[in-house]
Amino acid sequence: MLPKGFSCNGMHSGIAKDKNKKDLALFFSSVPAVVAGMFTGSLVKAAPVLTDIARLKKYKSFQAVIANSGCANACTGQRGKKDAEYISRETANNLNISSNAVLVASTGVIGNFLPVDKIVKALPSLVKLISKKDEKSAVSSIMTTDSFAKIAYKKIKVTKGEIVVWGCAKGAGMIHPDLKGLHATMLSFILTDAQIEQKQLQKITDTAIQQSFNCISVDGDTSTNDTVLVMANGESKTGKLDKKDTEKFQEAINEVTLKLAKMIAKDGEGATKMIEISVVNAKKHEDAEKIAATIATSPLVKTAFFGSDANWGRILAAIGRSGININPDKVDIYIGNIITAKDGMAVEFNEKKAKALLDKKECKITIDLKSGKQWARYYTCDFSYDYVKVNGSYRS
Amino acid sequence: MLPKGFSCNGMHSGIAKDKNKKDLALFFSSVPAVVAGMFTGSLVKAAPVLTDIARLKKYKSFQAVIANSGCANACTGQRGKKDAEYISRETANNLNISSNAVLVASTGVIGNFLPVDKIVKALPSLVKLISKKDEKSAVSSIMTTDSFAKIAYKKIKVTKGEIVVWGCAKGAGMIHPDLKGLHATMLSFILTDAQIEQKQLQKITDTAIQQSFNCISVDGDTSTNDTVLVMANGESKTGKLDKKDTEKFQEAINEVTLKLAKMIAKDGEGATKMIEISVVNAKKHEDAEKIAATIATSPLVKTAFFGSDANWGRILAAIGRSGININPDKVDIYIGNIITAKDGMAVEFNEKKAKALLDKKECKITIDLKSGKQWARYYTCDFSYDYVKVNGSYRS
Repeated sequence: MLPKGFSCNGMHSGIAKDKNKKDLALFFSSVPAVVAGMFTGSLVKAAPVLTDIARLKKYKSFQAVIANSGCANACTGQRGKKDAEYISRETANNLNISSNAVLVASTGVIGNFLPVDKIVKALPSLVKLISKKDEKSAVSSIMTTDSFAKIAYKKIKVTKGEIVVWGCAKGAGMIHPDLKGLHATMLSFILTDAQIEQKQLQKITDTAIQQSFNCISVDGDTSTNDTVLVMANGESKTGKLDKKDTEKFQEAINEVTLKLAKMIAKDGEGATKMIEISVVNAKKHEDAEKIAATIATSPLVKTAFFGSDANWGRILAAIGRSGININPDKVDIYIGNIITAKDGMAVEFNEKKAKALLDKKECKITIDLKSGKQWARYYTCDFSYDYVKVNGSYRS
Repeated sequence: MLPKGFSCNGMHSGIAKDKNKKDLALFFSSVPAVVAGMFTGSLVKAAPVLTDIARLKKYKSFQAVIANSGCANACTGQRGKKDAEYISRETANNLNISSNAVLVASTGVIGNFLPVDKIVKALPSLVKLISKKDEKSAVSSIMTTDSFAKIAYKKIKVTKGEIVVWGCAKGAGMIHPDLKGLHATMLSFILTDAQIEQKQLQKITDTAIQQSFNCISVDGDTSTNDTVLVMANGESKTGKLDKKDTEKFQEAINEVTLKLAKMIAKDGEGATKMIEISVVNAKKHEDAEKIAATIATSPLVKTAFFGSDANWGRILAAIGRSGININPDKVDIYIGNIITAKDGMAVEFNEKKAKALLDKKECKITIDLKSGKQWARYYTCDFSYDYVKVNGSYRS
């Protein structure tokens, strides 16, 4: 399934206490690849994020990403940066490639130093393992509170052949996009054998992120370590993409990132269901987006969804506090295809049918502002007992 | 305990299904009183809020507040407004006072119409009951998910006698101030026998709210019904307050509102502990306030507190996403008097001692930005299983 020229695998290096938990992943391209990156909008950026941002500015091509779970290497100061650089250099040595060709990513507890000796000791074995191209093993190695490995795949035909886009993602908690900047909200590595220039790849990535990872929220908390890396190694040998091919490629990246984003929302910590929130007929896209984000992060809305309670009043209350100047007397609220509020007021609806819709694994709600033509969509999940359980004891 | 000239009581009128749940409260001043009001900053304002705002603009003095629980009379359109006006007029008729002298307040489920017939039927009995001055009964009648009645009291000596400030509040969920406007975030009625002009009373109220109700959050959700009413009826006969007396009176209002605000944070839905968040040595007060509010509403921070987990990394992550431009490498984080992070990095600390502090009913954390002289404080509570339980089934 991996695009041409890529290999990957993962293993237990000893960061995780549990010997059965894989904690170190390596993604490798046999030839130099251009890379587009998106990083957390948080002011508090982890050491691997700072390392990658600096390298993307300085160097033109890369061949590998080394990523670990169990330790975020965040809030670790100068030592954290040195550790990240050391790991990437040692990875390059083991792969026998240029010492600047490796990017790094970490996820896990904030404030702990990376156990570099354990990681470096594991590298020779990991480098041997990657030829097996075990994608599941690689993705499992970057999971923390995730309950399943998130992988998405798309093959497209272009004028001179085929291009494969393969993507994976990790994320279940501390998930919320910062709508303003160039950044994302979890770890995601997208590999493609497309032949493309870095600038164009970055532009395509930016566009894709705006409709995928930037439209999800689990808990409203933006992470210090969020990283999206898109590697394109040209091994498809399809030559320069024309306008139509580029559009197809954009669509493929959009599709893969959206699939991964929805998987993250679905796998939100403790989540029992995914909720798709559409805000339609707004005056401005930004208004629709802010309203959708406010609903998506309202604990009262999210606990009502957990209880399959068609409590549209909480949705309207969230709209009211969103800071967007809309006319509340024009708002219609739908749960699935059932209208529960019209013109900002209660309407009679079949509570049983609404409850049945809310009992499903995927719920849709639509807010019709009846004031314009713009829209936005957000993906979130419910707030359950298990969210509290998972997060009341994360470090222990 | 009530100030001179005031009486109150509450009873079951039939809004609540449970016959033992009181749901209608009446607060009465035997003489006309000036009133200062603060209301929700939400764009979606409930009918009683709109009614009170209009009356406070139009009329100069008031004698009563009629308040109910079990139904918010929000998102109820024109009929909701008519219902609120009808209830206030009928209350006035029963009290034999001017029909414009009654203010109204409601709390409960959004989107249902007020059962006006039940309320009007109960009014003659309620009016008879108020002479008993049963404060607990009155306050119990406006409780929803609250677990205890919130009452605070302060008596001050002024040049020409004594002034009493008595206050009550209701609120456990949908609690979060909107920092920008004139508003509050729950129901609170403050009664005082001070002799004071409305303008000055409003100014004193504004000041008091900024350091009390505007510094609490339970769930980040601002309500459609938030109302604070401060009634001053002059029955202390202490004459016009001089500068020193005014300061004393301001302090008394500050103290009573802060006590009530802290009770609300403590009684947050499902809360097992109250958390006091102080952000100190900031460049601007607004910066400190925004950072404190971001920490106070972070689900990850709040669940960590539920688990008594000294997870300062989540606090620093919240600071990073607050949107305030601080230097993360200067931040110190204390739990109680224990420093857990210095200059944005981990320091060794006694986890057992930190856990013992976090196991208490009241926890204090301090964020030292080491960048200026301004500070702000926020009161919140932890996020527990019971928060999910209470809110997964609120309407049913």
